[in-house]
Amino acid sequence: MNGSITDVRGIEVGHWTSAQRPTGCSVVLARGAAGGGAVGGVDVRGAAPGTRETDLLDPANLVDAVHAVLLSGGSAWGLDAAAGVMRWLEEHGTGLAVGDAPGQIVPIVPAAVLFDLHLGDARVRPGADAGYAACQAASSAPPAQGNIGAGAGATVGKLFGMQHAMMGGIGSASVTVGRTTVGALVAVNALGDVVDVETGLPIAGARNGEGPGLRNSTRAALAGEPPIAILAGSNTTIGVLATDAPLAKARAQRLAGAGHDGLARAIHPVHTMSDGDTLFALATGQAPALDFNVLCMMAGDAVARACTNAVRAARSLRLDGLWLPAAGDLMRAP
Amino acid sequence: MNGSITDVRGIEVGHWTSAQRPTGCSVVLARGAAGGGAVGGVDVRGAAPGTRETDLLDPANLVDAVHAVLLSGGSAWGLDAAAGVMRWLEEHGTGLAVGDAPGQIVPIVPAAVLFDLHLGDARVRPGADAGYAACQAASSAPPAQGNIGAGAGATVGKLFGMQHAMMGGIGSASVTVGRTTVGALVAVNALGDVVDVETGLPIAGARNGEGPGLRNSTRAALAGEPPIAILAGSNTTIGVLATDAPLAKARAQRLAGAGHDGLARAIHPVHTMSDGDTLFALATGQAPALDFNVLCMMAGDAVARACTNAVRAARSLRLDGLWLPAAGDLMRAP
Repeated sequence: MNGSITDVRGIEVGHWTSAQRPTGCSVVLARGAAGGGAVGGVDVRGAAPGTRETDLLDPANLVDAVHAVLLSGGSAWGLDAAAGVMRWLEEHGTGLAVGDAPGQIVPIVPAAVLFDLHLGDARVRPGADAGYAACQAASSAPPAQGNIGAGAGATVGKLFGMQHAMMGGIGSASVTVGRTTVGALVAVNALGDVVDVETGLPIAGARNGEGPGLRNSTRAALAGEPPIAILAGSNTTIGVLATDAPLAKARAQRLAGAGHDGLARAIHPVHTMSDGDTLFALATGQAPALDFNVLCMMAGDAVARACTNAVRAARSLRLDGLWLPAAGDLMRAP
Repeated sequence: MNGSITDVRGIEVGHWTSAQRPTGCSVVLARGAAGGGAVGGVDVRGAAPGTRETDLLDPANLVDAVHAVLLSGGSAWGLDAAAGVMRWLEEHGTGLAVGDAPGQIVPIVPAAVLFDLHLGDARVRPGADAGYAACQAASSAPPAQGNIGAGAGATVGKLFGMQHAMMGGIGSASVTVGRTTVGALVAVNALGDVVDVETGLPIAGARNGEGPGLRNSTRAALAGEPPIAILAGSNTTIGVLATDAPLAKARAQRLAGAGHDGLARAIHPVHTMSDGDTLFALATGQAPALDFNVLCMMAGDAVARACTNAVRAARSLRLDGLWLPAAGDLMRAP
């Protein structure tokens, strides 16, 4: 057990990070036995989502199996990276077989994106080659966390403006009960603050003034401090839950929903009009079934801890006159 | 300001409580200027809901205005109490006018129910007369809290069985920013534990053994303690958010969703397979508009505090050999 989503049997993770500016993408592969994929679900709760192949995950629709999920920076441009994931999966013989002739395979790759176009040259965005490279890098080793992959340009605590924000990132966590595991990989790019769910204290969020001291965004807003006008969609937390329990498609959707309760506990506020918060769920079926309410509690816990792991693994960034400190660096400051 | 949902201009609350067993119903009236009602929305998040007139609240559907919301005990039987609310509203000339002839009025009364049939004689359920009586009792005074109305037979902390449970109840809270208020009225009958969102500590939930000491249901379940097999739908938290801000129908739906983040913070676990958690939102439009993200933060805060107010106002119950202590009584115990 490595404490991350790759503890889930059948799950691999790979990152691609731009060398040009803070952006990137991350792929979660669930190739399954004989390339059959994992049962998939999704729950979109933010008001400003950017997604691809989510409608097929509706339990009323046909296809059950997902072969990979892509998380990407670059806002809606980043959806193109899914093309590279499809190409890589085709080359590896993984996808929905739609016939016996060459090319008759369709990899199912749902995707969600987050907004990071305000950091550096907005013309640099993850494309198909980035998605392909993330697949090439994928393994069942514990994934790197912090400002890498889809979390490269993630920030948090923006309710009162970017000059008070801090670095977000991508993080992972897992929970095992008996022989069954639920893991989460979450790229945290929230409008809100990230809170330690054990102590209730903010660990990365809006700072007081331009110094390192944290304020509590919700408390400040409820005390009457006006938020800045924020571009719709200029935030967004996206992630993947995976379990090795067997699940029907409708239950996978509900597991993703349980993950959002973890987001609600770890991010304050969350699911706002300028967040496109989206969680996917994958069930590989390689471990014993578990009481579904317990599985949902595991999902909420894994998501919440993935969020705090994300911001704790982040590194401070100075770019274009903007200072975006990271939680770990502030803790080390005198 | 009285710290409850009736701080919202245009909102009245009334309870009816059975004298025969712990059950009842509560009505939130939003008659509006000239009987026009309030803009309504709903968000159903639990897996086992019992509801009425929720489909019309879909923003894609026709009717915008709601004249009252009914919360009731009695499981699906309690939906009948809405008939009495409709009758009372008709007698008071409030409803959707569908013509000029007598009787051409249709009050819009969405409703949700919770399960309390395990306490006493299950043949006793709120019916039409109960809904009518709740309307007769309605006023803009601060509503009574605890084991009254829809919260009369509410219990919490049932993951490991009723013999470890505690009393839930109905509670209210409000938040005002500038001249605009968001209030909540929530009947807390959760499978999970209720947690103080300020301290993170459980205040009413599953007890250790049959004594008064609280355990942490989520922590126990994640440590491998198996939950009991729970009848689907045998729990459920239901509530109403109200604001005097003006809102479009789609925003009212999203405000109800923001309330569910408050539930996620105050109830662990929540939105389970055996909860039918449902929140309504009403916008009376009698106060100035406010940044919508702030309004959503107010909603989450009001819902979370309504939950803790509910269990703190509850009273212990002994019935049929079952002891269901209340948080306030445990705190007073030696």
